[in-house]
Amino acid sequence: MSDFLAGINGPSDLKHLAVDQLPDLADEIRRALLTYSHAHGGHIGSNLGLVEATIALHYVFDSPRDRIIFDVSHQSYVHKMLTGRREAFTDPSKFGDVTGFTNPLESAHDPFVLGHTGTSISLACGMAKARDLMGGDGNVIALIGDGALSSAVAFEGLNEAGELRSNLIIVLNDNEMSIAEDHGGMYDDLAELRVSKGRAQRNLFRSMGLDYRYVEDGNDVATLVRAFADVKDIDHPIVVHIHTLKGKGLGSEEGSVESNHWHNPDSAAGSPLNARKTYGMMAMDALAARFDREPGLLVISPATPGSNGITREWRAAAGTHYLDTGITEEHAVAFAAGVARAGGTPVLATSATFFQRAYDQIHQEFALNQAPGTLLIFGGGISGTDNTHSGAGDIMMFGNVPGLTCLAPTSGRELLDMLAWSTGPAARPVAIRMPGNDILAAERSGGYPAFDETTTIGATIGDGSVGIDSAASADGVGAHDEHDITVTPTAGNPWAHYTVTRSGSRIALIGLGDAYPTAEATARELDAHGVTATVIDPHQFSTIDVVTLDALRADHTVAVTIEDGQLEGGWGEKIASYYGRVGQTASTSQSATPSQSATPTTPMRVLNFGARKEVTDRVPLPALRERYGLTPKHIAERALAAL
Amino acid sequence: MSDFLAGINGPSDLKHLAVDQLPDLADEIRRALLTYSHAHGGHIGSNLGLVEATIALHYVFDSPRDRIIFDVSHQSYVHKMLTGRREAFTDPSKFGDVTGFTNPLESAHDPFVLGHTGTSISLACGMAKARDLMGGDGNVIALIGDGALSSAVAFEGLNEAGELRSNLIIVLNDNEMSIAEDHGGMYDDLAELRVSKGRAQRNLFRSMGLDYRYVEDGNDVATLVRAFADVKDIDHPIVVHIHTLKGKGLGSEEGSVESNHWHNPDSAAGSPLNARKTYGMMAMDALAARFDREPGLLVISPATPGSNGITREWRAAAGTHYLDTGITEEHAVAFAAGVARAGGTPVLATSATFFQRAYDQIHQEFALNQAPGTLLIFGGGISGTDNTHSGAGDIMMFGNVPGLTCLAPTSGRELLDMLAWSTGPAARPVAIRMPGNDILAAERSGGYPAFDETTTIGATIGDGSVGIDSAASADGVGAHDEHDITVTPTAGNPWAHYTVTRSGSRIALIGLGDAYPTAEATARELDAHGVTATVIDPHQFSTIDVVTLDALRADHTVAVTIEDGQLEGGWGEKIASYYGRVGQTASTSQSATPSQSATPTTPMRVLNFGARKEVTDRVPLPALRERYGLTPKHIAERALAAL
Repeated sequence: MSDFLAGINGPSDLKHLAVDQLPDLADEIRRALLTYSHAHGGHIGSNLGLVEATIALHYVFDSPRDRIIFDVSHQSYVHKMLTGRREAFTDPSKFGDVTGFTNPLESAHDPFVLGHTGTSISLACGMAKARDLMGGDGNVIALIGDGALSSAVAFEGLNEAGELRSNLIIVLNDNEMSIAEDHGGMYDDLAELRVSKGRAQRNLFRSMGLDYRYVEDGNDVATLVRAFADVKDIDHPIVVHIHTLKGKGLGSEEGSVESNHWHNPDSAAGSPLNARKTYGMMAMDALAARFDREPGLLVISPATPGSNGITREWRAAAGTHYLDTGITEEHAVAFAAGVARAGGTPVLATSATFFQRAYDQIHQEFALNQAPGTLLIFGGGISGTDNTHSGAGDIMMFGNVPGLTCLAPTSGRELLDMLAWSTGPAARPVAIRMPGNDILAAERSGGYPAFDETTTIGATIGDGSVGIDSAASADGVGAHDEHDITVTPTAGNPWAHYTVTRSGSRIALIGLGDAYPTAEATARELDAHGVTATVIDPHQFSTIDVVTLDALRADHTVAVTIEDGQLEGGWGEKIASYYGRVGQTASTSQSATPSQSATPTTPMRVLNFGARKEVTDRVPLPALRERYGLTPKHIAERALAAL
Repeated sequence: MSDFLAGINGPSDLKHLAVDQLPDLADEIRRALLTYSHAHGGHIGSNLGLVEATIALHYVFDSPRDRIIFDVSHQSYVHKMLTGRREAFTDPSKFGDVTGFTNPLESAHDPFVLGHTGTSISLACGMAKARDLMGGDGNVIALIGDGALSSAVAFEGLNEAGELRSNLIIVLNDNEMSIAEDHGGMYDDLAELRVSKGRAQRNLFRSMGLDYRYVEDGNDVATLVRAFADVKDIDHPIVVHIHTLKGKGLGSEEGSVESNHWHNPDSAAGSPLNARKTYGMMAMDALAARFDREPGLLVISPATPGSNGITREWRAAAGTHYLDTGITEEHAVAFAAGVARAGGTPVLATSATFFQRAYDQIHQEFALNQAPGTLLIFGGGISGTDNTHSGAGDIMMFGNVPGLTCLAPTSGRELLDMLAWSTGPAARPVAIRMPGNDILAAERSGGYPAFDETTTIGATIGDGSVGIDSAASADGVGAHDEHDITVTPTAGNPWAHYTVTRSGSRIALIGLGDAYPTAEATARELDAHGVTATVIDPHQFSTIDVVTLDALRADHTVAVTIEDGQLEGGWGEKIASYYGRVGQTASTSQSATPSQSATPTTPMRVLNFGARKEVTDRVPLPALRERYGLTPKHIAERALAAL
């Protein structure tokens, strides 16, 4: 067996090999990847399919003078192995030394840190444009998979590329995922191109004004070397369509890993926590039970259903009640608005980080149009994930959209209640933040200590419709004009009022969604210091419940908000702002409730706990909680100091 | 002359006419539109081109059973005239009774309120899907222009449409804007289809899996009636490509209206205020002066350059230093990141409302990658615009992005200084919020009264690098790890510190950007009440200047923040949160500055002024200011009451 890999510390070492030695190198790399993936995990299939193409790219081109941009960049393992980071994949003690994505901080061969799909062509167009303006040279290469092509921004990039009059090479890695998983009419086009060996008249890329070349055996390194050498230094944009085998070298049984089955948190008491799949499956099962009698109920997933508990079996059983739109968040949200307007009941499930793509459609087609639909937010909140997949911004992203009701359940039961409401009587756009591991852990350990003996101050004081829009109380000027204003409605929302789950005094702890268990734990810390704190479950983050907040002022002086997302622009700041606004006497409040006396009270001091305005990269969750002071002990200390 | 229009109060009246009477009706409508547009303004060109097509659609199809979705919907005037809203275009006393966009609150014939480009196909797919699931019938029709096709979400929609196995009709209104204004390789494809009368082999729509039909004379109503009748009740998706003449009936001189020339605010003292064009042209001129010596300096506009002061003349002179990417915000931002990474200097200019489309790329490709580039935000803040074009969310959208520096200049001079910095020494991603009319008015009236006698408390106390990230001071735990954290850097940012423009006591008025003149005016109100308030220009909204905020606590008890955007998730709430955090004594502050004594001070009460969390529709700005209490008199009253 050859041992070429050990001698490769950069692309120049690779170029010393003869072309007929490259297949052996490919074998070495493939074996190393398999060993690595068994021990460490990762996006192995796409990397295995691209072993030969990556070798050929670095053999023909001169990175970093020639810039290679990996779309999404989770298929850059081989690239990393060939550009000085070999040991991170071959030496178990160094597994984890590099990220799963390209990263300029790691290597000059990585132009960008990328984790969202479809931007490589746009980035490449920009690099090519700058090169041309500034009189530089070098090839600019974007490597993009067929699945990523369904992504909106990829089309915009192709369209721009069609206008460029200089060097740009788009390598389309077509691993025929179009047969099994890709979605959309253009995949018929790709299939025709494969069958015709690139000669089909119907050719999306030529239609976009691009030159085109087809390579049938995208796992034959010599063929690829010739193909890339032919287009090197080309003076116009070209698509090199290479046909590869995803997961090449992987046993078939290894390719069929599906999600685990944790429908019921209790039945999985011994399993590692996976709230995402657990609650996702719970929600999907609740919806599936209604399919027979509700023909318009439709679950929409813009790709990656499995990680959200939407299993293969569930999808098969759901039939026409399920639609995978491919990697198309913008389209998926507008599509959901269309379904809703036509009388259907859409439920759209994806990651917080990917919902960022649909920010405009959430504002316009969904919320402004008051489309009665449900967005299920998975993976919201701080976590130890890569910097490209942070969910820490979900509260600010959703919670500030006018007209959108945002719910944060703190139990599986509440999730199901909220989902039943949002897909039924709500008749408005709703986002539900799926519960996280802290909630699952609390449920498995027997629930929240004080949760069963609920005292509902809000419900007692409020009349069920007083939970007025928080900003509306800012000034007391003007009334809502239903014709020309879209506010976030609270009427008819069973979760508009906060729930006081534990009555106390002096300190009120308000924990939103996944941070609610932290509020409970903080109360226990405070018990040890002789302070019986009030604990509140706010249920939602689209309005603030001024009735409950006003009531707290009678016998509390410190209000603590706890959220597991970015503080700035988030939820707790709204409460700090509210208490500043109402000031020292209840009578200065402009809220609609007359139930409070005008007696001066001590001003309420608000402590907001949450994440910094930053993006973290694979920092473990416990370390983040320490960094942000999101621990019961620290919060209790700060609250006591503020008394 | 015929008088058919007066008898049409809904589509059923239209159907009573004979086909050969329809051209006369078209003439009537065209004349009415011209009269209307002269008196009232509006998107006249696109409506004139679609007179015959809209008549034919309503003649053939049965709205609202058949659903017609107008993309962007600014070309829906004729549709409105034919669906019961005729008088809003023919009776001058009723001009303005209907909006410029479709709106379900106006008519059952309007399925959505739409103002952003390219979503009609996705919405139509959703309506078709719901129809199929629920066993309904009726045609679903999306009408979309060729310009809108460059928009990412339109491609995603086409791709989904290619998978649908039932009725969906996409009417592509091709008015050959591709010749003059459209951008991207696919416009060559459209041109080939026109030249070949739809017979070209290269066909983007067939490549996407769609059936296709071409109609050469898209302004011949009888031809259109036949074409639409042929595809009515079709059992699969089809694109009907109609070739129309934009602005048909409009004199050529009327079609060439270009922006006015207000390079210098002073020279236009008598003109109506148009800060958007004024400051846009000012910025463009400053950049153009550098083109000769900075080959990599590139202005990027995802369409509508004219409204931002990027005039035709300027564009022509800029040559390769200017690029119109078409309606492609996602691509444009990623493209800018590519230009930046390759050493160029991108400046991307568009509306706040359209930047929503690129929310993800701003977070990922731009800020996370720390691309040294500039985003120019036009039209930010509250205004009397349509509900689809609100700029009131720009502060929350940009100000909460980790790693992005957000500047809010309060004069033309400061705008130019900030732009010079962002395109030079900044070497980081920067967004600049273009100054608005209040600032222009203040400049024209001789500047801000107190602005020349600047007292810079922040600059005196701070050391130029202390303006730490606000969230970082939340807990005092942990230090920044430059490797795995992207924070918003303040080092080297000349605007990290707030400027105290007027020294006073008791009340501090902090007015961000366009709200700064309101802070000045509020101070004058307070003078009359014997309170000499401090006035502060914060310059930026990406971090808070804790040095200045701490210093205020010595002799102020009320801090007032004023912003002309949505309060929730915005900028002022961060200051309310900060003062809650630091509490009653300076020593509880975890900030890095040791310059404050630990003497207890009176707690600072914070009043946040800004817009409600709502979307308004053509509510005049003065009415909004009353509604939100954003008037100097009201703010002064509230501030005095809080003392």
